[in-house]
Amino acid sequence: MPGTRLDLHRIRAARKVIDPVFVDTPAYICEPLGRRLGCEVTVKLETANPVRSFKGRGSEVVMDGIAAGNGSGAVCASAGNLGQALAYSGRRRGIPVTVVAGTSANPGKLDRIRELGAELVLVDGDIENARAEASSIAAGRGIRLVEDSLDLDTCEGAATIGLELVESSRDLDVVLVALGGGAMATGVGHVFKALSPGVEVVCVQPSGAPAMTRSWHRRRVVTTDTIDTIADGVAGRHPIPEVLTDLLAVADDAVLVDEPSIKTGMRFLRDLAGLIVEPSAALGVAALLENPARFAGRRIATIICGSNVDVDDFTRWTSMEAEPALAD
Amino acid sequence: MPGTRLDLHRIRAARKVIDPVFVDTPAYICEPLGRRLGCEVTVKLETANPVRSFKGRGSEVVMDGIAAGNGSGAVCASAGNLGQALAYSGRRRGIPVTVVAGTSANPGKLDRIRELGAELVLVDGDIENARAEASSIAAGRGIRLVEDSLDLDTCEGAATIGLELVESSRDLDVVLVALGGGAMATGVGHVFKALSPGVEVVCVQPSGAPAMTRSWHRRRVVTTDTIDTIADGVAGRHPIPEVLTDLLAVADDAVLVDEPSIKTGMRFLRDLAGLIVEPSAALGVAALLENPARFAGRRIATIICGSNVDVDDFTRWTSMEAEPALAD
Repeated sequence: MPGTRLDLHRIRAARKVIDPVFVDTPAYICEPLGRRLGCEVTVKLETANPVRSFKGRGSEVVMDGIAAGNGSGAVCASAGNLGQALAYSGRRRGIPVTVVAGTSANPGKLDRIRELGAELVLVDGDIENARAEASSIAAGRGIRLVEDSLDLDTCEGAATIGLELVESSRDLDVVLVALGGGAMATGVGHVFKALSPGVEVVCVQPSGAPAMTRSWHRRRVVTTDTIDTIADGVAGRHPIPEVLTDLLAVADDAVLVDEPSIKTGMRFLRDLAGLIVEPSAALGVAALLENPARFAGRRIATIICGSNVDVDDFTRWTSMEAEPALAD
Repeated sequence: MPGTRLDLHRIRAARKVIDPVFVDTPAYICEPLGRRLGCEVTVKLETANPVRSFKGRGSEVVMDGIAAGNGSGAVCASAGNLGQALAYSGRRRGIPVTVVAGTSANPGKLDRIRELGAELVLVDGDIENARAEASSIAAGRGIRLVEDSLDLDTCEGAATIGLELVESSRDLDVVLVALGGGAMATGVGHVFKALSPGVEVVCVQPSGAPAMTRSWHRRRVVTTDTIDTIADGVAGRHPIPEVLTDLLAVADDAVLVDEPSIKTGMRFLRDLAGLIVEPSAALGVAALLENPARFAGRRIATIICGSNVDVDDFTRWTSMEAEPALAD
C-alpha cells in the first residue's frame, strides 16, 4: 500500500454512501481523439450529473459524515465546483452549507451555488483569500470546515474514480489527472498505486498555476504569488503540506501545460469527442498535445473532471487558432 | 402487455448481450434546464460512448444474433448513426458490415463509418433511396438486411433505455422520445406501457419530416414526398406498417416541432446542460418549448439520443436568435 493518509477500505466504503448519480460514470475509448493524438485515449466522463463535475463524489462522503455525526453545517472555499457539490449534498440531507468564493470566480458557477440553496459569501481576491475566510467562518460558527484536498473525505471520494477505472479491467499504461489542490490526484493515484501499480500516474497542472507541481518536483512546499490561467478549477497558490506528502507517494510525474494547449485541448474534446468541458478537464489532452513522443502508441486514460464553463468563454477559447505542433 | 411485436423477456435478455459501454447510461435531473422550461427535466444521456448515439444498443443485439447464427455479414441503410453502430458491433465480432447512405448524409458521420472499418456505399438522394439499395445488396450477397425499426433487434435494443429508466425508480409523468423510423419510440414505449403504464409516452418528430407522426394520428401509413429538417437522424418519408402498428399500441401522443424550436432546444442543452447534441436529441426540449402549458410542473424524461453533429453546423444552429415564446 502506498504511504498516504488515504485508505482503500474507506475508499470502497465511500462508494456506497455516494449518491448513485455521481458514480459508475461512462468510460470509453474515443477513437477520433486517439487517432488525432497518436495514442489510445479512454475518456472517463465526470460531467453527466447534477453538478457537472467529479466533486459530488467527495461532497457526498463529507456530508454523509456530517449527517452521521449530527453536524450542524459546513463551509468551504471554492472557485465553484466544490461549492456546487457541497450545496447539492447538503440540500439533499437538510444540512446548511456556506460557500466562500473570490469575486473573480466564474459567475455561472456562483449562480448555481445560490440556486442549490447554499449561502454564498464573496471575498476580494482569489481562492487563497476565500480559504482564509472559510476558516474564520468555521471557527466563528462552530461548523465543519471542508478544506478541499486536506479533508480526507474529498480525496477518498475522488478516489472512487480510480476504483472504477481499475475495476473496469481496461488495460492502461497511463492515467492523466488534473492537479489543483490535489484531492483527485492523490485519490486516483492512491488507488492505482495500491491496485494497479504498473500504471503511470501523471498529474497535469497549468503553467499559470504551478505551485503544487513545483512543490512535487522539489519535494517541499513552494508557493506562488499569482495565478494566471483560465483553468479556475485548479488554480491554487499555497499547496497543503499533507497533500504534497501524499502526492509524492503516488504520483509518477507532474507536468505543466501552457494556456494555448489547454484551449486546443478543449477544442479537440469538442470537435473529436463532442464534449463541452471546462479548462481543467482539458489538462490531460493538453499534456498529450505538448509531449506526443512520450505518449505515442500508449493506452491513456484522461479524467474529464468538469463542464462548468461559461458558454461565451468556451466559444472564445475553442475558436482560438493557436495549436502546438503535434510532431515531436 | 402492450400488443406489439416486442417482448419484455427478449428486451431483458438483450441487455445482457450489449457491450457494457452502451448501457447503464447517465440519467439525472438537470435543474437549470427544468427551471428555464418550467418543469422537472431528467436527462437520459446516450452520447457518452464510442459511437455517440443510442444505436449501439440495437446494433449489438443484431450482431450478437448474426454471430450466433454464423452469419457472413450485414448491410443497412443509415444516415449515419445506425451505420456507425453496426460498423462498431461488426468490427468487434469480425463480421463485415456494409452501410448505404445518401450523398446528402452528414460527412462527419460517414467518415466515422469508414474509420470503423465498414464498407460505405453512397447513393443519390435521401434515406429512402439508400433503403432500396441496401435491400438490393442484401439480396445479391445473401447477407443480413438490417432495416432500422422493422428489425426487432433494433427496437428491443433501444428498448433497454426504457428498462433503465423504469428500473431507476425515478418518478416520471412523461417520457419524450424522438421519433424517426420508430425503433426507439416503440422500444421505450413498449417497456413503459408494460411496466409503468401511467407514464405518458410522447413521440416528437420534426414538422419537416412528419410521415410517422401523421401516420400515427390517421392510424394508417402516410408517406411524404420530401424531407426538410436539420434532424437527419429522424428523417424518413415511408413509415413501415409493422412499426406503425407497434407505435399505435404504445404511444400516447405524437407531436411535431418546428426547426427554430429544435435549434433553440440545442442551444438550451448547450447553455443549461453543457451538452453538445445533434438535432434529433433536442426534439424533446423542442416539444417542451412549443407547449409549456402542457408540461408545466410535470416530471419529464428526455432521451438525448446522439451527439453526431458537425461542429460548424452546431455552432451556426445554436447561435440563431430564433426562440419561441415560453409563455402559453
